[in-house]
Amino acid sequence: MTGANDILQLDRAHVWHPCTQMKDHEQQPPLEIVRGDGSLVFDAAGRRYIDGISSWWVNLLGHAHPRLTRVLQEQAATLEQVIFAGFTHAPGARLAARLCAAAPGGYAKVFYADCGSAAVGQPRKRRFLSIVGAYHGETLGALSVGGLALYREKFAPLLLDTLLVPGPDCFRCPCQQTRATCAAECFAPMQAALDAHAADLAAVFIEPLVQCANGMNMYSPVYLKKLAAACAAAGVHLIADEIAVGFGRTGTLFACEQAGIAPDFMCLSKGLTGGYLPFAAVLVRDLQTFDAFYGEHAEQKAFYHSHSYTGNPMACRLALETLDILETEVLAALPARITALQHVLASLAGLEHVGETRQCGFIGAIELVAARAGKRAYPPEQRTGWQVYRAALRRGAILRPLGDVVYFMAPLTIPLDVLEELGAIARDSIREVTER
Amino acid sequence: MTGANDILQLDRAHVWHPCTQMKDHEQQPPLEIVRGDGSLVFDAAGRRYIDGISSWWVNLLGHAHPRLTRVLQEQAATLEQVIFAGFTHAPGARLAARLCAAAPGGYAKVFYADCGSAAVGQPRKRRFLSIVGAYHGETLGALSVGGLALYREKFAPLLLDTLLVPGPDCFRCPCQQTRATCAAECFAPMQAALDAHAADLAAVFIEPLVQCANGMNMYSPVYLKKLAAACAAAGVHLIADEIAVGFGRTGTLFACEQAGIAPDFMCLSKGLTGGYLPFAAVLVRDLQTFDAFYGEHAEQKAFYHSHSYTGNPMACRLALETLDILETEVLAALPARITALQHVLASLAGLEHVGETRQCGFIGAIELVAARAGKRAYPPEQRTGWQVYRAALRRGAILRPLGDVVYFMAPLTIPLDVLEELGAIARDSIREVTER
Repeated sequence: MTGANDILQLDRAHVWHPCTQMKDHEQQPPLEIVRGDGSLVFDAAGRRYIDGISSWWVNLLGHAHPRLTRVLQEQAATLEQVIFAGFTHAPGARLAARLCAAAPGGYAKVFYADCGSAAVGQPRKRRFLSIVGAYHGETLGALSVGGLALYREKFAPLLLDTLLVPGPDCFRCPCQQTRATCAAECFAPMQAALDAHAADLAAVFIEPLVQCANGMNMYSPVYLKKLAAACAAAGVHLIADEIAVGFGRTGTLFACEQAGIAPDFMCLSKGLTGGYLPFAAVLVRDLQTFDAFYGEHAEQKAFYHSHSYTGNPMACRLALETLDILETEVLAALPARITALQHVLASLAGLEHVGETRQCGFIGAIELVAARAGKRAYPPEQRTGWQVYRAALRRGAILRPLGDVVYFMAPLTIPLDVLEELGAIARDSIREVTER
Repeated sequence: MTGANDILQLDRAHVWHPCTQMKDHEQQPPLEIVRGDGSLVFDAAGRRYIDGISSWWVNLLGHAHPRLTRVLQEQAATLEQVIFAGFTHAPGARLAARLCAAAPGGYAKVFYADCGSAAVGQPRKRRFLSIVGAYHGETLGALSVGGLALYREKFAPLLLDTLLVPGPDCFRCPCQQTRATCAAECFAPMQAALDAHAADLAAVFIEPLVQCANGMNMYSPVYLKKLAAACAAAGVHLIADEIAVGFGRTGTLFACEQAGIAPDFMCLSKGLTGGYLPFAAVLVRDLQTFDAFYGEHAEQKAFYHSHSYTGNPMACRLALETLDILETEVLAALPARITALQHVLASLAGLEHVGETRQCGFIGAIELVAARAGKRAYPPEQRTGWQVYRAALRRGAILRPLGDVVYFMAPLTIPLDVLEELGAIARDSIREVTER
């Protein structure tokens, strides 16, 4: 066995870390994590860190969860993977039925895959629409360099043309409203875009309630209600990307529930396996899309799309167990945690350089500003959020920010005392960086 | 517990299977697989099936492999996942070092991600080139609907413009050569494209030795030698997609070894985890690309690209164990299996409707034709390959074809007697369908 020092040497020599300016590691080498336990992870020196961001929003129920680990171990020893075309398995069939029943309004079909690629259906309508700041993933480019007509022809028209319209920005509301007075006035540009482009729009993509990567930009469910109604009126599909906000993060199993909408497609991933494995599911509400690909072989209508590990039985087992744990234990206990998070945020709201604290369910965010007056942002080169992250890390918490937005997206099972500790670390770290 | 019948009902009601004309399942419901063991999988009725295609080319060492299962179980109980930005872990660091050392010519860095998206580096050169029939994955569309400039700006120029040139097609050689006389004369269009477009080409993508999805189109290493030399001369990156052909499939650990080339990037996936989990790695040969993203924070050069589960420790452990098993057991035993596959293919070559048998390492393919004279193909609507698949399934083997190309891509550990049985099933099934 090699020691920690060797691991850091191997890492420095050979690993290109994601979303990382590798030169930073000259001064601050990465921390070597050796084990996880609930909301904590431990480094090679035995130091503990509260995982305040659920390891990039995936860890839903805590690290190395005994029940999740057990079903994974069982399934690995039985059937780790099998081709999912022409074949099926109990975890895959059961999970599909369960997701269809659990999602608001009821869904018909589940396609195990990644998100955007599967959201097709109206071949003559080729454009997608999304809102400024939207983030729906980074899996692009592969098909552009593929040459098999079988795989390309149905997708080729979709590769290019996306309409981007301004969406909600509640901290600096473009309509001069506050969260208290808001009636989603900012929906106007979306309505205008739908009016102008309905004829060639295939679908609108939306992250319901929270644009996570866009600085945890939280907005009113009224916007979603308007969007669902407008999409229905325009005959345009609505695709909800619940990848980050699904599975209890916003206080309900799915974020769409809070707006009372049932989008045509729903994309799930991240927490779907409790944070163990990469896996994704697209829920299809009605059969119109399915039927568009249904027919005799000679009609050549089948949906020739796949990923090698589609329907991985271990991932399906983990997802079933995750839903069990959520429904029997976690969701009922969530309101108390959401209240505790309110208190944490309230304790931060008065700090001199906190422009806003905001909360949606169990997601909390703190937007740091150079000055509250005019909501003046820090110059990016000061890396204020990054400094808070480093300060919190020294205190034993992982609070990797989005720019100058520090946020909490902890495992839903974090004990209340650990949540309070996380809040205290955030407060001390923000003060250290912004008030020195 | 529900029985098999219920599983099929749930499946029929709610699962949209990949690469499947779902209407086919009205007549032929999917088979419910309940366990795997080595090169075999078993359905709910206890029937055994030889997995002749490694469950879509992923299962490298057999199903439910005891050593792979054990390391997965261990890692799941210790640290199932942790954020890989600012943090590292022993499996991730060790695997990076090991992959860099194992790949031909030596590589510098490993980026854990999916393939195409990571293959950037020369911002002013924006076009990719690939050859007709190339298949490099199906993960496209997500970024087109994202709106965060941070993630989009470096990739936006890459989304559109791919050059496609004719490549090898040895069964129906465009240069009227045979495999015996071939000197990769068909490289001429690629040379012409490189001559014409070098100035704005970022990279050429190639599946070395075998275009798998394109009917197991096998071609000479001489083509790869010419390509590597021409790319170097033109200052264009060469990206080898070893996703399907890597990890011993072609008889060597990597297919590129057989051409003596060391591409600038190498993309690995599928067999990388022994077929357990989705995972991908991009190997970067020299530091020029890495350095393009290296700098002070203020320069804003970092590679802001990630996937939620980047560097998953369970996947890394599986990959390390897979390499161990390959290097200590499997590769040494492979020549005997390759010879046995030769015998299997030889026993099929004389059948009336076999236009060609071809082999590259442990991949074997049989191209069915309506008539050998003129290599006349069957009308697609006859679904000849599909009928062979169904006939083989009744006999206990999974030989899902590519059009009318039936192929063998069995686990590298398949016992010799099972391989012979697989060959016999293929022969009987082909005769049943083509000679009736």
